[in-house]
Amino acid sequence: MIITLTTDFGTGSSYVGQMKGVILSIDPAAVLVDITHALPPQDIRQAALVLEEVAPRFPAGTLHVAVVDPGVGTARPLVYAELGPQRYLAPDNGLLSRLALATPPTRVIALTNPAYWLPQVSRTFHGRDILAPAAAHLSRGLPPEQLGTPGARLESLAWPPVTHGARRIEGSVLQIDAFGNVISDITWQDLTAREPPDAVSVVCGGEAVTGLVRTYADRPPETLVALVGSSGRLEVAVVGGSAARRLAVRIGDPVVVTW
Amino acid sequence: MIITLTTDFGTGSSYVGQMKGVILSIDPAAVLVDITHALPPQDIRQAALVLEEVAPRFPAGTLHVAVVDPGVGTARPLVYAELGPQRYLAPDNGLLSRLALATPPTRVIALTNPAYWLPQVSRTFHGRDILAPAAAHLSRGLPPEQLGTPGARLESLAWPPVTHGARRIEGSVLQIDAFGNVISDITWQDLTAREPPDAVSVVCGGEAVTGLVRTYADRPPETLVALVGSSGRLEVAVVGGSAARRLAVRIGDPVVVTW
Amino acid sequence: MIITLTTDFGTGSSYVGQMKGVILSIDPAAVLVDITHALPPQDIRQAALVLEEVAPRFPAGTLHVAVVDPGVGTARPLVYAELGPQRYLAPDNGLLSRLALATPPTRVIALTNPAYWLPQVSRTFHGRDILAPAAAHLSRGLPPEQLGTPGARLESLAWPPVTHGARRIEGSVLQIDAFGNVISDITWQDLTAREPPDAVSVVCGGEAVTGLVRTYADRPPETLVALVGSSGRLEVAVVGGSAARRLAVRIGDPVVVTW
Repeated sequence: MIITLTTDFGTGSSYVGQMKGVILSIDPAAVLVDITHALPPQDIRQAALVLEEVAPRFPAGTLHVAVVDPGVGTARPLVYAELGPQRYLAPDNGLLSRLALATPPTRVIALTNPAYWLPQVSRTFHGRDILAPAAAHLSRGLPPEQLGTPGARLESLAWPPVTHGARRIEGSVLQIDAFGNVISDITWQDLTAREPPDAVSVVCGGEAVTGLVRTYADRPPETLVALVGSSGRLEVAVVGGSAARRLAVRIGDPVVVTW
Repeated sequence: MIITLTTDFGTGSSYVGQMKGVILSIDPAAVLVDITHALPPQDIRQAALVLEEVAPRFPAGTLHVAVVDPGVGTARPLVYAELGPQRYLAPDNGLLSRLALATPPTRVIALTNPAYWLPQVSRTFHGRDILAPAAAHLSRGLPPEQLGTPGARLESLAWPPVTHGARRIEGSVLQIDAFGNVISDITWQDLTAREPPDAVSVVCGGEAVTGLVRTYADRPPETLVALVGSSGRLEVAVVGGSAARRLAVRIGDPVVVTW
Repeated sequence: MIITLTTDFGTGSSYVGQMKGVILSIDPAAVLVDITHALPPQDIRQAALVLEEVAPRFPAGTLHVAVVDPGVGTARPLVYAELGPQRYLAPDNGLLSRLALATPPTRVIALTNPAYWLPQVSRTFHGRDILAPAAAHLSRGLPPEQLGTPGARLESLAWPPVTHGARRIEGSVLQIDAFGNVISDITWQDLTAREPPDAVSVVCGGEAVTGLVRTYADRPPETLVALVGSSGRLEVAVVGGSAARRLAVRIGDPVVVTW
């Protein structure tokens, strides 16, 4: 079975390797795929966004293991969940909540059966001690209901709304990628519901951009541009540079579209 | 089929995972190998150097997918290319031009056939929407000519020349590795064509080194040394430290050898 | 065969990819697993700790290739070693010495047989030229004794002792993880040999913590806490933050427990 791994453990960490070892010890035939281990530490929202973008691209039946778990060792459950054709193992802390917006879970199981945990379970690393062995047992064919008790729902997170006014849409910065592209929560649908997109003005970080380009290199280097990116969201970019650095914006800062 | 991935997407990015998902959705049996995703953003030259060093080490028939693509969505073609026994998928922007210096392409095909793209193609992420599905279809056995129209050549990049004078070779800094080793474009062949290498003086970043050592630990810690590194290029290093930090040099700065 | 890779080459380096290519050229069926390539450069101790935590988690017979090799090209041997059910290829510079504390090697072989090196061996990259081909030949079934000459022991490193006084244990900072958790060399066994752990006071970086918590989120955000972490070692953490930043401590700084 294909098992993907998404964590905030850091690229230099031993924690990722420990999880891989546990999985392969139980199922040496598991196919491990690294998504990322460089998520910002303990940032459930950024992880939820990555899962939303990545997981649905995988073949049906893929098992996605996600570990961003600031509440490890507390009462928060660990869950197995099915959302559409994809399967997940994660702490139930909102990690799956972006995915669940589009595809509500058809099955949720709390990982309460210690038969499928490691014999010794630490209080601070359930990714290794509970999620990794669960993944490997599923990969070997264990029916998911063996993992524990059925649950009804997943934890959700509140996200700031995108508000639509008269000739105006207000959103915020959702992500900043490694190129410094500043990606908002305003979607193509938000834009096209109201007005042809080429007439808009986009304000972010104190600068305004008029009109949308089709792609980055439609303008000369160093130009600040706005466009709809590869996830269907409005983003602000500097051609050949970093908009995040130029605008000095952060996740959550406002992005306003007017026309 | 073995498919390698080389990008500038960043280690924390969702973009890599999206490409992996697309490939495995089409060919779940593809064997994915990460080369690096931490290339400097939009730096085609640094990527071309990594490909030159890495790709020929792989078994014949390996498919190397490389995405450093500042011109994504513009007229620059995406290509399938065969250079020696290796196969490549990349934007035709010079990424393959270092490899092509030693091994000219025997086949180039522009990826113009939308039958092997994703059904929806964004304007800003052709790695996911065109290169990844092409890789997966080739992995499943698609004859390359199905991908599009034959081309004749690949885009090349001009590289600063290494100049040979009287008892003098002038080159420049080509790469700086994670140890801070400063790697020049002056090769072992450049050196041995003229003079026994142990008599040379190497000047870089305002400091001079006399003589070449065989390996880093031939001198005490903190010593600045010059040697021919593992890619056959002259490099300057600090034993147990970082020459790049000590010399405060950058890619493109001059390196001069005299004797 | 499963082959893990642990290096200090850096996430942006071509060196990792070169090793993968060499291995797969000799054994295209090898299953490569990245542990980390972001170890601090030339830091044998940090690498030894990661190997100690990770390698024993893997299935019996796994081959772990580790390259942190400041003495590359000098007289230090490269070795194949068996410690418990795990197999290793590494420079014999102490990299395996943490593992060997718990599980002395049952077999050590110096990689002296050039038949299993690459045809051309550089002086500065034996990971690629000697360790990678050795790994691939073993993966194809080569009996280890073919690799070279039997050895008796492995290089060891001295580690600062944990000292036990009257109502006092003195240790030091062993690791700092990506969350900024400050992990000491004082173990659960050190603590429980003397006193119930909830009565302790832990001093590190000029601050004192009284009592141990069970897990990070047992206290409100921003609280400095002490706990026994997932490797069984006493660590100091900031709930939802970075203890390393708050305390401004480094590897080797003192950690003192009193009661």
